[in-house]
Amino acid sequence: MRAKARAHTNIALIKYWGKRDEQLFLPTNSSLSMTLDHFYTDTTVTFDNDLKQDYFNLNNEQASEEETEKISRFLDKVRDLANDQRFARVDSINHVPTAAGFASSASGFAALAAAATKAIGLDLTKRELSQVARLGSGSASRSIYGGFVEWQKGEREDGSDCYALPVLEQEDWDLNVLSVEVTTQSKKVLSREGMKRTVDTSIFYDGWLKAAREDMVTLKQAITKRDFTLFGETLEANALKMHATTLGANPPFMYWQSATMRVMEAVQSLREQGVEAYYTIDAGPNVKVVCQPQDKEKTINALNEIDVVNQIYTCQIGPGIRYLDV
Amino acid sequence: MRAKARAHTNIALIKYWGKRDEQLFLPTNSSLSMTLDHFYTDTTVTFDNDLKQDYFNLNNEQASEEETEKISRFLDKVRDLANDQRFARVDSINHVPTAAGFASSASGFAALAAAATKAIGLDLTKRELSQVARLGSGSASRSIYGGFVEWQKGEREDGSDCYALPVLEQEDWDLNVLSVEVTTQSKKVLSREGMKRTVDTSIFYDGWLKAAREDMVTLKQAITKRDFTLFGETLEANALKMHATTLGANPPFMYWQSATMRVMEAVQSLREQGVEAYYTIDAGPNVKVVCQPQDKEKTINALNEIDVVNQIYTCQIGPGIRYLDV
Repeated sequence: MRAKARAHTNIALIKYWGKRDEQLFLPTNSSLSMTLDHFYTDTTVTFDNDLKQDYFNLNNEQASEEETEKISRFLDKVRDLANDQRFARVDSINHVPTAAGFASSASGFAALAAAATKAIGLDLTKRELSQVARLGSGSASRSIYGGFVEWQKGEREDGSDCYALPVLEQEDWDLNVLSVEVTTQSKKVLSREGMKRTVDTSIFYDGWLKAAREDMVTLKQAITKRDFTLFGETLEANALKMHATTLGANPPFMYWQSATMRVMEAVQSLREQGVEAYYTIDAGPNVKVVCQPQDKEKTINALNEIDVVNQIYTCQIGPGIRYLDV
Repeated sequence: MRAKARAHTNIALIKYWGKRDEQLFLPTNSSLSMTLDHFYTDTTVTFDNDLKQDYFNLNNEQASEEETEKISRFLDKVRDLANDQRFARVDSINHVPTAAGFASSASGFAALAAAATKAIGLDLTKRELSQVARLGSGSASRSIYGGFVEWQKGEREDGSDCYALPVLEQEDWDLNVLSVEVTTQSKKVLSREGMKRTVDTSIFYDGWLKAAREDMVTLKQAITKRDFTLFGETLEANALKMHATTLGANPPFMYWQSATMRVMEAVQSLREQGVEAYYTIDAGPNVKVVCQPQDKEKTINALNEIDVVNQIYTCQIGPGIRYLDV
């Protein structure tokens, strides 16, 4: 009744931006991500007859009541699936620097889903596993696979056709992702809140849904052909469109800050000098820059010159979930 | 056969963003502006039997061939209206600092339209005059009137129902507009070009047209009630939506720069401190900040603390066109 799993975080290139069902984490649009090698979560789950409640240790410390409650609600779903109501002890080590602006919820819930379902004796396919992970955090559904991953939105109300699928294995295209952390004030609109406000009020939301469908077709073509220019232009344009929707919300809001734009300007200037780098931005001020290995050094050097850049983390494309010995 | 006129520049609060007819300057959406007191153009036009061509002096120097050609094409329309084919001498003095990011074309073509039509002997209503000015530059149609002005888009293909109308006289609401000039590189996408690319390719353009209609209703209510909060929130949100459309264009582009965002952030921070200031941004990096007289000093002081701010010009609401003695 014990299992340990490792899952890596991912960045969305076609953004997940809107839910059609808040409870089941069913999205309004399909998204596409790259799994990253450097940032991951290791989670051990032990179901035990003797426990009177769930316990959650995060980074070797007892987690807060709120965090434990969240994990417990997720474990309820796993218990219901297995028809086994035992409590569990969960130990997680997060190798995801919070400051890098990666949501640790993607790797966190992917690792938890893998370890918990195995520990409780379920034998799930990866597709099923991605559906279970989705119930913890939408983007976690994509972290089940390595390389390039599509999370298809599905049509059904019960979410049975809403899961992730591999698009291209990690070994098949060598790219770098630089995670650029900038100096900021604290985030003012949370990701979940901003997503909901955008879906409910943005005058541009219909345009977004249309764009996400079109960008998905183009990005998959670019990946198939290993066309880095088309790939980069498409992912950057998709991020810009996601952020445009927040400007059409009521009231409008913005995840970018002036420091974010400094990085965007530097990337554009690199391209004008012939260095092919492209950026994407999630629901926060930090920037991820995608480039090919031959341009990595030049790109890092240019970004390091920006005074509002605190730190740059270098990643490559990473693997899907893996079970570890306990 | 000589007349002199003064016209002031204006800033759009509901943006003019898209043409339905490139030749006649017919817009896709109605816009609403404030005419400003500080920045204006004085233009003298003399029609003369002895001239063999048009002459154009700008700020006491002979203008370039290109500029003269533009003025000449505009005078052709006035000559056709009057059925009088004499050439003219045009003397313009622009009291509009280019660096402040105001298009001098609004005050320029409004003053030229007023002086040229009077000099050639036409007796036009202000409504007719705004239609003539529109043929030189869309936003010039609004500079015929002072105070708050609506340029209604009209429906007809010949533009006969496309003209400006006064909404509120300048004396009836005392507001300040601070024009904030920031340090930038040169503008990369021209206003006219960007507008066309947005209309032709932006996935958000339909959303913009809907938003512009709604914002017009709200802003006119705010003006009628002198509700400064509603006024400020509506004008700022409209500018954000206009700029969002450029992020949905193909290829996407941006008029904002990181320096622009520094000013936007400062205005937001002022509001968090209880100082009611709101911004609007045209097709360039500079920012215009609107506030009430009691908040002017605090606002100017806060903006002056930003290192990328070069200069701040203070304006009030200004008058419509006026004929001067020659």
